[in-house]
Amino acid sequence: MLTRSRTEITDAAARLLIDAACAKAEEIGVPENIAVVDSAGHLLAFHRMSGAKFHSIATSQAKAVTAASIGAASGHAPMEAGVVVGLTTQGAFTNLKGGFPLIIDGQIAGAIGVGSGSPDEDIAVAEAAIAALMSALG
Amino acid sequence: MLTRSRTEITDAAARLLIDAACAKAEEIGVPENIAVVDSAGHLLAFHRMSGAKFHSIATSQAKAVTAASIGAASGHAPMEAGVVVGLTTQGAFTNLKGGFPLIIDGQIAGAIGVGSGSPDEDIAVAEAAIAALMSALG
Amino acid sequence: MLTRSRTEITDAAARLLIDAACAKAEEIGVPENIAVVDSAGHLLAFHRMSGAKFHSIATSQAKAVTAASIGAASGHAPMEAGVVVGLTTQGAFTNLKGGFPLIIDGQIAGAIGVGSGSPDEDIAVAEAAIAALMSALG
Amino acid sequence: MLTRSRTEITDAAARLLIDAACAKAEEIGVPENIAVVDSAGHLLAFHRMSGAKFHSIATSQAKAVTAASIGAASGHAPMEAGVVVGLTTQGAFTNLKGGFPLIIDGQIAGAIGVGSGSPDEDIAVAEAAIAALMSALG
Repeated sequence: MLTRSRTEITDAAARLLIDAACAKAEEIGVPENIAVVDSAGHLLAFHRMSGAKFHSIATSQAKAVTAASIGAASGHAPMEAGVVVGLTTQGAFTNLKGGFPLIIDGQIAGAIGVGSGSPDEDIAVAEAAIAALMSALG
Repeated sequence: MLTRSRTEITDAAARLLIDAACAKAEEIGVPENIAVVDSAGHLLAFHRMSGAKFHSIATSQAKAVTAASIGAASGHAPMEAGVVVGLTTQGAFTNLKGGFPLIIDGQIAGAIGVGSGSPDEDIAVAEAAIAALMSALG
Repeated sequence: MLTRSRTEITDAAARLLIDAACAKAEEIGVPENIAVVDSAGHLLAFHRMSGAKFHSIATSQAKAVTAASIGAASGHAPMEAGVVVGLTTQGAFTNLKGGFPLIIDGQIAGAIGVGSGSPDEDIAVAEAAIAALMSALG
Repeated sequence: MLTRSRTEITDAAARLLIDAACAKAEEIGVPENIAVVDSAGHLLAFHRMSGAKFHSIATSQAKAVTAASIGAASGHAPMEAGVVVGLTTQGAFTNLKGGFPLIIDGQIAGAIGVGSGSPDEDIAVAEAAIAALMSALG
């Protein structure tokens, strides 16, 4: 097999994810940075809500990249592995919670990363966004 | 004077800029990366249209950062100066065209950077976005 | 449209490309570095022939990444743009000749970059590899 | 003594290592990134199996570079030392397990790094590759 087909989210899906994430973040009163990447970890869309911490611009993106690469939620590696991989990849990989892959048709089709709130808040916002996308996909 | 007031665009303005930029890019048939930063050069919003080059994710952001920093359009430094500053800042500063500051009330309130098309296309998309923002500001 | 399907070469195709490139490089007596990336620019396979210059390890990869991103052969940008983009992307993008996209079903399915020989030699090796892949795809 | 002879693996050995590593990885059902470097730490060959994590492209290479540099398996430094060296070398050196030097005639002749699986899986794949090379060397 010399070629294969890979499912990717579009920028329209990225926008839907960001809108849904913002709605949830406003509901809980926590300004967030929201990053959406494609399956290769390249940034598709980003939104920083007013008041979201600017140092979390980078970490929200790293959470999304991590989730796209491992195909699982960020933040669950053993501490040692997380620290050393973060170093090795110069910050592209993180062990912070708040990154989730978008699994569509059994494939990693992209990922979302949320950062600025507490881990629980970031996770709640990301999960609300994913639920909205999955609902729109039917 | 121990304090000063800084005029900043909001994330709502960033969204307006991205929507207007996408509309112009679709009109001319050129997929683009659009980055909006605040006056400090920190990313506020980003959108990669389907088909936009992935290496321009970084350059569109660098164009916006450059414009926010110098308060003028990117791409007009003498060639030699552009190269040396680019080297010195490890790519955060660029001499590529397509970055423009958002001057509001005489202050740098943010900046936009557009990348993936030709210089003329990137400029046209950025200028359309700025015109839409200025029109909305009245 | 919230998702799209992207055609990608597999690692089997990457191996085929490297074997064909090595055969051509041996035929013309020029040791080469050969890099194959997927459509997102991530390295799929790499081979440095005995005697190939080690500084071309990085440039062969940059050629492939560039071709995957722009969907066209590397080395044809105006000089100024090439230099400044190279700086902005910290070397990931290059204006050196020897990088070619792999266009399959009208999509960028990956790219190959060859480096260590002269531009003409690098191009000849890359083109031989692509011809072999296209022949195998039928 | 003004000169010395350095034993190096060839690209043919690198290919043998990658083939043996892929065979073992398939046997245990774990897609891997496999990097082979020469004694100087320069990349000789690389292969990313379908499904291997893309962030491990960089870490598999760092494992190989580390093993070539220290002449011992990666991943055994005390945690603190690993972090500090990783920071100092900006990610070229790693304390992740899965990198092994290729000791031939008492010299470091190259190294292999494997990444994407668990530490135990990466080690098993690397060891199978080394065993195949040593067997071929007789």
